[in-house]
Amino acid sequence: MSNNNYTTFTDVNTLGEFGLIDDLTKHIQIYNTNTVKGVGDDAAIIQNDGEVTVVSTDMLIEGIHFDLMYTPLKHLGYKSVVVNVSDIFSMNAVPTQITVSIAVSNKYSLEALREFYEGIHLACKMYKVDLIGGDTTSSPKGMAISITAIGQAKKEDIVYRNGAKKGDIICVTGDLGASYLGLQILEREKQVYLAHPGVQPELDKSQYLIERQLKPEAQAGAIEYFKKMDIKPTAMIDVSDGLASEIIHICKQSGTGAFIEEGKVPLHPDTERTALEFNLDPITCALHGGEDYELLFTIDEKDLEKIRFMPEVFIIGEITDLSEGITLHTTGGNIHPITAQGWNHFKEN
Amino acid sequence: MSNNNYTTFTDVNTLGEFGLIDDLTKHIQIYNTNTVKGVGDDAAIIQNDGEVTVVSTDMLIEGIHFDLMYTPLKHLGYKSVVVNVSDIFSMNAVPTQITVSIAVSNKYSLEALREFYEGIHLACKMYKVDLIGGDTTSSPKGMAISITAIGQAKKEDIVYRNGAKKGDIICVTGDLGASYLGLQILEREKQVYLAHPGVQPELDKSQYLIERQLKPEAQAGAIEYFKKMDIKPTAMIDVSDGLASEIIHICKQSGTGAFIEEGKVPLHPDTERTALEFNLDPITCALHGGEDYELLFTIDEKDLEKIRFMPEVFIIGEITDLSEGITLHTTGGNIHPITAQGWNHFKEN
Repeated sequence: MSNNNYTTFTDVNTLGEFGLIDDLTKHIQIYNTNTVKGVGDDAAIIQNDGEVTVVSTDMLIEGIHFDLMYTPLKHLGYKSVVVNVSDIFSMNAVPTQITVSIAVSNKYSLEALREFYEGIHLACKMYKVDLIGGDTTSSPKGMAISITAIGQAKKEDIVYRNGAKKGDIICVTGDLGASYLGLQILEREKQVYLAHPGVQPELDKSQYLIERQLKPEAQAGAIEYFKKMDIKPTAMIDVSDGLASEIIHICKQSGTGAFIEEGKVPLHPDTERTALEFNLDPITCALHGGEDYELLFTIDEKDLEKIRFMPEVFIIGEITDLSEGITLHTTGGNIHPITAQGWNHFKEN
Repeated sequence: MSNNNYTTFTDVNTLGEFGLIDDLTKHIQIYNTNTVKGVGDDAAIIQNDGEVTVVSTDMLIEGIHFDLMYTPLKHLGYKSVVVNVSDIFSMNAVPTQITVSIAVSNKYSLEALREFYEGIHLACKMYKVDLIGGDTTSSPKGMAISITAIGQAKKEDIVYRNGAKKGDIICVTGDLGASYLGLQILEREKQVYLAHPGVQPELDKSQYLIERQLKPEAQAGAIEYFKKMDIKPTAMIDVSDGLASEIIHICKQSGTGAFIEEGKVPLHPDTERTALEFNLDPITCALHGGEDYELLFTIDEKDLEKIRFMPEVFIIGEITDLSEGITLHTTGGNIHPITAQGWNHFKEN
């Protein structure tokens, strides 16, 4: 089942730390003119030209955030970048640079690390971000990845989580819950494989869901559209922990309530079908699944006409008074409070 | 021997991820007016005002970079910040912000994490840097720390590793080799303790060396002095891997040779005494020990007079033609080539 087998195994010990860094950084391309100095010194240098710098960082740990049994290293590298640039987009900023630090045990060959970096480079190319630094070190066990993404924006364009106000329209850029179900399928097939190593996994029907889990994309197009159409969302966040957790963040920081209309939450047909297979309510997957990396944002009513022409957007609810709480209006006509029960790695252990 | 015992053990699982982040970030103070937005959104925002942004990142892994048996968590937090701001100083820039990500297994209590963050906050206060973001997650085993430091400088003030030229004077801001010997002592006492748990470690005589290892400082004063005296070093690097490795970096990137005069390399009396106890040559500890976090820099001859008044500086050699290689002029009158054999975690495993 694993995609991480290599015909050649070059022990990284044979290269030494500096040799390894040279090998992994020699293909770096620079896409931004404001990258004055990338890798190769004690620090990287970024020119600013009157814009503010936007910084976000994420850590991914083997056995917690990813399972290499079903995660190809190239996809892992790609996704590690995506989850970070997604945070920059969610500030209405443009990602421009990243630093990548990894710690790996000696079970990882040079070929494996190159595969990981191939995914990193691919994502850098896709999102036009420059890999400007990082750290490469060993670990007694497993793999740890830490990425810091840096972006730029005009100060007045930055969108925080705290600007939503009563009457604002709640939008999301794409369908939710698919990534979570992709993970459920991969976990199920892993268990089948462990019990019966000869059986080939059944993944064909679930390609969309698995791709949403293993190779998500960040919403660069939405930010471009906002700029082109002169829209500034009042609040924005990316959906990493699930719609419930994210709308609660916006409401908590904005001091508002909100309602989400169940019937308006975009769900892919495969999400609906597969949720039922797992005896799950599809809306629960959207609310609490996470890792969709769509943007959840609120806009002033006056921008509604502009938003209607956005290529990928779904209007799913409205911001209300704080006193009205945060609720789901179900298709059956009921009103349920929305509570947080997103991924909580600390509670899982 | 361990300093990391707490009378209270609060399982972090009882707080959840967001509760834990709230607890650990509530004491954050902001020291820089250019920190527009710190923790609490998808990314942090930094104002630039015409300066360039300097970025450096480091990863520290339990069992590779630190041993919690003799490293108090508060010191670990402090040192984690120091090693990163040191990289910013070595670009002749001023550190202004950091992001801190940690992954910990559930053997770490809330009290332990608070202790770690106490060290982080202390270093932030010492170096006037703002903690603006990060990630807190769990790990199946041990502790992983990743810190990104951000600084500011005028573009024309940045000092790279590649500007040294023939005739430049090689300087270092303080004594070398002490941190390495501090580590040797801690390792020796750990072995004694493991063999005879009742025996108290003998650390009093070695206070200086142990402090250099457990609580190093970065060279903020040197950067302030350069600014005040209008000196711009031609090349600069911080001594993290040992004098040999660092001078090789400068020469390799500058396309020069260099000689270091053994007799001029500053050694603390405790370093000399303790090296002999361990049957080591003190100069070997300075060349290959590392973790001193002093600045190694080169200046044009014309700045010699200005450097003489620097409170903490030692002139230890000179930059030469590439063809002359990188050599040590020993006190005995011999010339030895200097080769790299700094810390190499990949080779150790």
